[in-house]
Amino acid sequence: MRRRLYLHLEPTAWPRTGLSPANVAIAVLIVSAALLAILETEDTLRSGAPRFFLFAELLIVLAFSVEYLARLYAAGEDPRYRGLWGRLRYMRTWWAIIDLLAILPFLVTMGAQNTFLLRLLKLLRLLRLSRLGRFSRAWAAISEAIHLRRFELMLSFAAAGMLLILSSACLYLVEGGAQPEAFGSIPRALWWSVATLTTVGYGDVTPITAPGRILAGITALAGIGLIALPTGVLASAFSDALRRQAAQDRSGPPGE
Amino acid sequence: MRRRLYLHLEPTAWPRTGLSPANVAIAVLIVSAALLAILETEDTLRSGAPRFFLFAELLIVLAFSVEYLARLYAAGEDPRYRGLWGRLRYMRTWWAIIDLLAILPFLVTMGAQNTFLLRLLKLLRLLRLSRLGRFSRAWAAISEAIHLRRFELMLSFAAAGMLLILSSACLYLVEGGAQPEAFGSIPRALWWSVATLTTVGYGDVTPITAPGRILAGITALAGIGLIALPTGVLASAFSDALRRQAAQDRSGPPGE
Amino acid sequence: MRRRLYLHLEPTAWPRTGLSPANVAIAVLIVSAALLAILETEDTLRSGAPRFFLFAELLIVLAFSVEYLARLYAAGEDPRYRGLWGRLRYMRTWWAIIDLLAILPFLVTMGAQNTFLLRLLKLLRLLRLSRLGRFSRAWAAISEAIHLRRFELMLSFAAAGMLLILSSACLYLVEGGAQPEAFGSIPRALWWSVATLTTVGYGDVTPITAPGRILAGITALAGIGLIALPTGVLASAFSDALRRQAAQDRSGPPGE
Amino acid sequence: MRRRLYLHLEPTAWPRTGLSPANVAIAVLIVSAALLAILETEDTLRSGAPRFFLFAELLIVLAFSVEYLARLYAAGEDPRYRGLWGRLRYMRTWWAIIDLLAILPFLVTMGAQNTFLLRLLKLLRLLRLSRLGRFSRAWAAISEAIHLRRFELMLSFAAAGMLLILSSACLYLVEGGAQPEAFGSIPRALWWSVATLTTVGYGDVTPITAPGRILAGITALAGIGLIALPTGVLASAFSDALRRQAAQDRSGPPGE
Repeated sequence: MRRRLYLHLEPTAWPRTGLSPANVAIAVLIVSAALLAILETEDTLRSGAPRFFLFAELLIVLAFSVEYLARLYAAGEDPRYRGLWGRLRYMRTWWAIIDLLAILPFLVTMGAQNTFLLRLLKLLRLLRLSRLGRFSRAWAAISEAIHLRRFELMLSFAAAGMLLILSSACLYLVEGGAQPEAFGSIPRALWWSVATLTTVGYGDVTPITAPGRILAGITALAGIGLIALPTGVLASAFSDALRRQAAQDRSGPPGE
Repeated sequence: MRRRLYLHLEPTAWPRTGLSPANVAIAVLIVSAALLAILETEDTLRSGAPRFFLFAELLIVLAFSVEYLARLYAAGEDPRYRGLWGRLRYMRTWWAIIDLLAILPFLVTMGAQNTFLLRLLKLLRLLRLSRLGRFSRAWAAISEAIHLRRFELMLSFAAAGMLLILSSACLYLVEGGAQPEAFGSIPRALWWSVATLTTVGYGDVTPITAPGRILAGITALAGIGLIALPTGVLASAFSDALRRQAAQDRSGPPGE
Repeated sequence: MRRRLYLHLEPTAWPRTGLSPANVAIAVLIVSAALLAILETEDTLRSGAPRFFLFAELLIVLAFSVEYLARLYAAGEDPRYRGLWGRLRYMRTWWAIIDLLAILPFLVTMGAQNTFLLRLLKLLRLLRLSRLGRFSRAWAAISEAIHLRRFELMLSFAAAGMLLILSSACLYLVEGGAQPEAFGSIPRALWWSVATLTTVGYGDVTPITAPGRILAGITALAGIGLIALPTGVLASAFSDALRRQAAQDRSGPPGE
Repeated sequence: MRRRLYLHLEPTAWPRTGLSPANVAIAVLIVSAALLAILETEDTLRSGAPRFFLFAELLIVLAFSVEYLARLYAAGEDPRYRGLWGRLRYMRTWWAIIDLLAILPFLVTMGAQNTFLLRLLKLLRLLRLSRLGRFSRAWAAISEAIHLRRFELMLSFAAAGMLLILSSACLYLVEGGAQPEAFGSIPRALWWSVATLTTVGYGDVTPITAPGRILAGITALAGIGLIALPTGVLASAFSDALRRQAAQDRSGPPGE
C-alpha cells in the first residue's frame, strides 16, 4: 500500500509517461491555492465573500496537510528516508520545508492570523510545479543553456547597466535644466532611462528639448541592441545545448 | 468535368506549383469578406452606405454558396467521400462545417439577422487560407518547431507567469499605500505588471515612490529576459527543424 | 582619362578594397543632401536661414549634375553602353533615372519650384548607398536569408494579422460599451490592438473594465510570441545562409 | 614582494581561476565609487549628508591613489615597463591614464573642485571591470561575433535609418496638417517615428487622423522587423563564433 502511494506521489517514480492522477490533482490544487492567495488581496472580493475565502482556505490547508502526511509516510520507500530518523531527515529537505511553510502558519494560529506574508508563502508552492513530469527535462535544457553562457549574459547585463548610466548622465546634462523634477539628477534620470532602454516607454517622463530628444532617440535605438544581444546569446546557447544533447543521445544509450 | 473541378478546388490536387486560379479567386473573396465584416462594425461606415453593405453581403453569400455546392460535388473524386453517404461524411469534416457556418445564418434568417456573432463566424474562414499552396509547407515547419520545443516554450510562459505574480506582489507591497487605486491588490498590480514585463508600457499606471520605481526598473530589465527566452528557444528550434528537413531531403528523394 | 574616371566612379570596378575617394565624396554628398532635404521641411530653420538653404541646394544640384555627366561619359567603358545609342540605353537604367530625378526638377523650374514631392525625390538617392563597397555583400546575405524563409516570414505576418483582428474583435465585444470612442468598432479597436501586439503601447487608449484588461494582458503576452516568431525564423535563416556560404567557399575557389 | 604584488594586481597573472582577493576588493571599490558619483548628483541626498559624501570621496581617492602607486611599482615585473623609462611608458598606457584621471582632479584642486565633469570621469573606471577574470573571454566572444557580422549589423541600422526617415516623411504628409506642433516637419515627426519603430511608444505624440493611424500601425509592425533583423544576425553570429571556437579547441591544445 505504501509502495502504491509512493508511486503516485513521487513524480520520478511514476512508471508511465506524464503525471500520476494524484500529482495532477495536487498541481490543480497548488494553482487554485495560488489564485486564491492572489484574489484574497483584493478587498472588494474579500469583503464581498468572506465565507467563501475562509472555507476555501480551510479546504486547501486540509488537503495540503493530508498530502504532507501522505508524503511523509510514503518517503519510507526511499532507502535514505527509512525509519524515524530517516523521516526527520526527509523533513529537513528543501521541498518538505516549503510544503510545511504553506500549512504551518494557519495551523499554529488556528486561522486567526492570515497576514500578507503568510499569503506570499503559499505562492512559494508554485515553485514545486517545475519538478513535475517532462518539465524537469525542459527546465534542465533551459538552465544548462543559461549556465553555459552565463558570462556572456552577465556581460550583456553589465553593458545594459553601463548604457543606463551613460544615457542617464547625458540626459541629466542636457535636460536637467528644463525638467529638474524628472532629470535633475542621475538617479532621477535613471527612471526615464530604464523605461527607454528596455523599450517599455511609459511616457510619464519624456525629454522636451531638442538635444534631449536627439539623445533619447539614440538611447531608444541602443535599446534594440540591448534586447538583441542577450536574445542572440540565448539562441546560440540553446542551439549548442541541443546539439550536445543530440550527440549524447546518439553515442550512448538514451538517458531519460 | 467533375475531375477538372476537383483539380481546381483542392489545393493539394493542383498539378502545377502555386495556386489554381479558382483558389486565388476564393482567397481574394475570403479576405474581402473578412474586411467587410470588420468595416461593418463601424457605425459611421455602415449607416453611411447601408445598400453597399447589404449588396456586398448578398454577393459574398451567393459566391460562398456556389463554392460550397461545387466542393460538395467535387468531393466525389476523393474515394473517401464517394456516393451519398460519402458526401454526408464530407459535410461532417472540419473545413466543411466552417464553410457551412459562414453562409447558413444568413440563409436561414433571410439576411434579416446579422448580429455580431454571425459576423465573427465569417472571420473563421480566414483560417482556411493557411491550407493554401506553399504556406502549408511553411506552416508545417513552424508548427513542427513549436511542437519540438513545446515544453521549453510552456516553461518560459510559466516563468513569465511567476515573474508577473512576483513583481505584482512586490509592487503591491511597496506601492499599494501610495496608489491604492492602481496597486491596492495583486490583481490590480497585475495590470501594471503585464504592461511592464511585456515591454508594452502604456503608462496609464506607473509607480511614483522611490522603492516602487527601483522594483519597476528591475521588472523592466527582467522583461528583456522574458522576451529573449522564448525567442532564443524558437530560433534554435527553427534551426533544428531546418537541419532535420535538409538531412531528410538529402537521404531520401525530395518530397515536395 | 575616361578609363580612370570609370574606375573611380563604378564601385565594382575599383581595384582596391573599400571605396574610391570619388565615391566616398559622393556618399558624403548624398547623406548631406538627404539631411538638408529633411531639415528644409522645418519652417523655423528654413525661414531662419533661407540663403543657406538656397545656396546649399544650388551647390548640391551642381555637384549631382557634374556627377551625372561624368557617369554618362564614363559609361562608355562598359561595352553595353558604348556609342550614342549605348548612352541612351544607360540613361534608361534604373539608377540613371534616379540620378536624373534628383536634379531634373530643380533644373527645369530654375529652382523656383521646390515643393515637398521634389524634396522626397532627393531622399531616393539614399537607396544608392546600398550598392557601395562591402555593403553589397552584406545586403546579399540579408536578402538571401529573407528570401529563403519568405513563406515562414509571410506566415508569421499573417499570424500577426489574425491576432490583430482577433484581439480587436474581443476588445470590441467587452470594452465597446464602456469606451465607444476607442473600442466602438473593430477598426477603432485595431488602433489599440496594433499598439499592444507590437509592444509599442502608446497608452492613449487603454481598456478600463476588468474583462477588457484581462484580454489586454493576454494580447500583450501574445505580442511576445509575435516578436519571437519572425526573430527566430530570421536567426535560423541567417545561420543557414551562412553555413551554405561557408560550404561554398570551401568547395570552390573564394569568390570575392 | 614586488612579484606577489604583481600576481595579486594583474588579472592575467593570477595563477588560480577567478579573481585575486585584491582585485575583488578593487572591483567592489570601483562599483562603490560609481554608485557614489551617481548618488552625488541628487541634491536632496548631497545636502542631507554632506559630510558622508566628503568623507567617502576622500577615502576613495586615497584608496585609488594607493592602488595607482602599487600598480606603478608592480609594473616593473613586466619586462616592458622595467626601470624609470619603463614606468613612464606604463603611465602612458590607456588604462593607467584612466586610473590617473580618476584621482588627479581631486588631488590637484584639494577636493575644492568637484564639478559634474570630474564626477563623470570617475564613471570611466567602470570600463576597467570588463578586463577582469573570465569576463575577458566572454567579452572576446561577444566582440568577435559583432565584428564578424559588422556589415550586416551596420546595414540593419542603415535600414532602420531609412525606415525612420520614410515613416517620418509619410506622417509629416498625412498628419502635419492636423498636428503641426508634433508632425509639422520631418525632424519633428522623427521624434514620434523613433519612439514607434523601436517599440518604445511614449505616447506623448500619437497620430489622430485615420490615415495617420493606418501608417502608424504599419510603422509599428515594421518595427518588429527592425528588432528581428539585428537579433537574428547576432544570434547566427554567436552560433558561428561558438562553433569556430569549439573546432579550435578540438584541433589544438586548450588555450585557456
